[in-house]
Amino acid sequence: MNGTKFDVIIIGGGPGGYVSAIRAGQLGLKVAVVEAAQLGGICLNWGCIPTKALLRASEINHLLHNLTEFGFAADNVRFDLEKVVKRSRAVSAQLSAGVGHLLKKNRVTVINGFARLDGRDGDNRKVTITPTTGGQAMTVLAPHVIIATGARARVLPGLEPDQKLIWSYREAMVPTSLPKRLVVVGSGAIGVEFASFYRNMGSEVTIVEVAERIVPVEDEEISGLARKAFEKQGMKILTGARIVSVDRGSDTVTLKVEAGGATHDLTVDRVISAVGIVGNVENIGLEGTAIEVDRTHIKVDPYCRTAEKGVYAIGDIAGPPWLAHKASHEGVMCAEMIAGRKVHPMDPLNIPGCTYCRPQIASVGLTEAKAKDAGYKIRVGRFPFIGNGKAIAMGEPEGLVKTIFDAQTGELLGAHMIGAEVTEMIQGYVIARTSELTDEELKETVFPHPTISETMHEAVLAAYDGALHF
Amino acid sequence: MNGTKFDVIIIGGGPGGYVSAIRAGQLGLKVAVVEAAQLGGICLNWGCIPTKALLRASEINHLLHNLTEFGFAADNVRFDLEKVVKRSRAVSAQLSAGVGHLLKKNRVTVINGFARLDGRDGDNRKVTITPTTGGQAMTVLAPHVIIATGARARVLPGLEPDQKLIWSYREAMVPTSLPKRLVVVGSGAIGVEFASFYRNMGSEVTIVEVAERIVPVEDEEISGLARKAFEKQGMKILTGARIVSVDRGSDTVTLKVEAGGATHDLTVDRVISAVGIVGNVENIGLEGTAIEVDRTHIKVDPYCRTAEKGVYAIGDIAGPPWLAHKASHEGVMCAEMIAGRKVHPMDPLNIPGCTYCRPQIASVGLTEAKAKDAGYKIRVGRFPFIGNGKAIAMGEPEGLVKTIFDAQTGELLGAHMIGAEVTEMIQGYVIARTSELTDEELKETVFPHPTISETMHEAVLAAYDGALHF
Repeated sequence: MNGTKFDVIIIGGGPGGYVSAIRAGQLGLKVAVVEAAQLGGICLNWGCIPTKALLRASEINHLLHNLTEFGFAADNVRFDLEKVVKRSRAVSAQLSAGVGHLLKKNRVTVINGFARLDGRDGDNRKVTITPTTGGQAMTVLAPHVIIATGARARVLPGLEPDQKLIWSYREAMVPTSLPKRLVVVGSGAIGVEFASFYRNMGSEVTIVEVAERIVPVEDEEISGLARKAFEKQGMKILTGARIVSVDRGSDTVTLKVEAGGATHDLTVDRVISAVGIVGNVENIGLEGTAIEVDRTHIKVDPYCRTAEKGVYAIGDIAGPPWLAHKASHEGVMCAEMIAGRKVHPMDPLNIPGCTYCRPQIASVGLTEAKAKDAGYKIRVGRFPFIGNGKAIAMGEPEGLVKTIFDAQTGELLGAHMIGAEVTEMIQGYVIARTSELTDEELKETVFPHPTISETMHEAVLAAYDGALHF
Repeated sequence: MNGTKFDVIIIGGGPGGYVSAIRAGQLGLKVAVVEAAQLGGICLNWGCIPTKALLRASEINHLLHNLTEFGFAADNVRFDLEKVVKRSRAVSAQLSAGVGHLLKKNRVTVINGFARLDGRDGDNRKVTITPTTGGQAMTVLAPHVIIATGARARVLPGLEPDQKLIWSYREAMVPTSLPKRLVVVGSGAIGVEFASFYRNMGSEVTIVEVAERIVPVEDEEISGLARKAFEKQGMKILTGARIVSVDRGSDTVTLKVEAGGATHDLTVDRVISAVGIVGNVENIGLEGTAIEVDRTHIKVDPYCRTAEKGVYAIGDIAGPPWLAHKASHEGVMCAEMIAGRKVHPMDPLNIPGCTYCRPQIASVGLTEAKAKDAGYKIRVGRFPFIGNGKAIAMGEPEGLVKTIFDAQTGELLGAHMIGAEVTEMIQGYVIARTSELTDEELKETVFPHPTISETMHEAVLAAYDGALHF
């Protein structure tokens, strides 16, 4: 392998890197992808995917405790946490193996190891790889290198994960027993998904959030509804909260938290820290290059190009939004650009965000506040799930769809959803935004009945003459 | 009321009529809607809506018998059929009451009765109404009349519903006990939804279909996958089947069915007849008007105008597709037209169809066969659920998305889906079709990860360079 020349070397085999590798392979490029851990990266092995399997379990648990509503009954309802976790791990393992097959099918060379930029050889970049399993380092070459090393959990001083009492997402994903009392610090997507999982499995959950509201990147109204729903489910939520002290006992943790002018002493069994991420910019050879790093993220132009010719950065390492599909999209864009295809820069406002708590949250584009801040004159439409027949029939009457239009042009500036199935529904609004659909075209679209997706139509109508069913 | 003049009188309070009435009310028109039975019509009271509540129950039953897969267990799992049915009826009652409130809010006069066209008085149409509760007939007037009387189940000679052994959708919706053995005649949406409900609740189900495949309006490949899935669930399916004789016993029915060159003797407890619909064209005063009826449906132009000036027909009475959202859309169009707004004729190829069996089916536009018949040179993309992370995580690996593009223009001619959640997802393709999106724009769209909706993106890619994850 040492000295092999590729068309493109991709550092990192997560959803940015492996998808980029597949696309580059499809386009006939000779590709190497270097991954130090598991193919599929954090997303597939320790993030998006295994959490979805866990959340499916917690939704089943919720349903099993609400069977009467639907005319059902069962005795001695129980779960085996080991099996729940095992299923989640098996899903990840299956998909990671699948990625291996896909890479092979597309003739991508997979190298297990740590890669670093290591100067140039003429038009080629040199990438030196230290095998994960030890052994001799090797150097491979390519005119194009894509950095897709991703990110890791941010660590708050005093709240360092210790694998026992204070968990990162890693330990939170493979519990060996259910904590009776749990604090989740941070209420972004990762935080509230774990909060939802553990609450619906039976833990007492408190969310501690430094911002003034939970899921703070979402529209304020959606945050409010999420809070209301979580509190109805029995969660305790502290916002505008500052952790004053952390006391680790032998099998409990005591947090002193200031929030709302009061001090809260929280003694719990486990704490999950979910306070954001930092980019993996270390030990990849950025030193001595022109590549700029801004707060642990590599600076790129709208085409993911760094300040070094032929070196690209995609996904989490290249800055927000920190979402797998953004990484994949950038990966495809880079592969196509390297293959000589014409590409369009990504518009971050067309990247949807999904959070799989119960109720689910999904959004795309500007929030109401951001649209106003940007100086738009807006029209806002709202439609609640309670006005939707399918939602009622499914026993899912809790939810809202909110649309924000430019009052002057009719452009859909943003769409915000909370409720059942919204993560599968948001793509309709993404298609609308990507193709610059106007309000008129959305009004004319016939949504199938009976579906919850009709709320998407009604929320458009609501911004104008009024919804039909409210 | 007698002699009252309205701007528009709507005959029928189903999803065509009541939605039209709301829209007309929003636009400031003085509206009367005449309904002989329940507001919301068949759809809301005896169709789309209560079946969704029943199907939700049957999905729960299916899950309860597959808990082990997810790490759960329960003893003595049971359901109370009376409660299941009662919940379904309560959902309909709640929504029907809701329609009443919406009509009131929009100042629509609701008249309980049977209406018929009864000549003219100058520029106004006379509509004579016989109250449902008896009493004096009255005549009301309006320059515009919208006929939205809907349809009823078609009756096959020899297979006439008798409320005991042979059920129409009505009896099938309110069973007092679960038939052990059931035959469903007809495999359109209504037939397979009942087949799914009863099979998942525990009945032995045989589907008898005269066409060569089940769900015959769907793409042939989707029909094939539906059949495979149903058979895996234990259903027996006879296609190309002709019922030779029907023998009603005291508590069983014996059908002699010829299919595939063999004769099948089916002795079962109950039979559901779901063999299509006929329009309710009788006793509404069409005689002596210029309005033409073609096989129980009123002939209309693309704006739902009949041959009589000022008289419109919408929904099932106006011909296929026989879908509630088509009726509502036509109702809105008529209301806007009457209010003087500019409207666009409906394109039937932009009307999605959804079937809520397990696995769900959803589609829009042309099937592969129809696209070929129409002379298109096509590109076909396919993506199976087994390549989708969320589907695997949810335990729903059974499904397919199929796209059909015009190879010359890149227009999305049709999209066909089978699998979990597809009824909520199809709207994305409908938006794409309505706005005449090209393949290029769909390829550029970023679908959120991890969602099953990513299969919609992959099925587009698959029609071109190839899917990323297969």
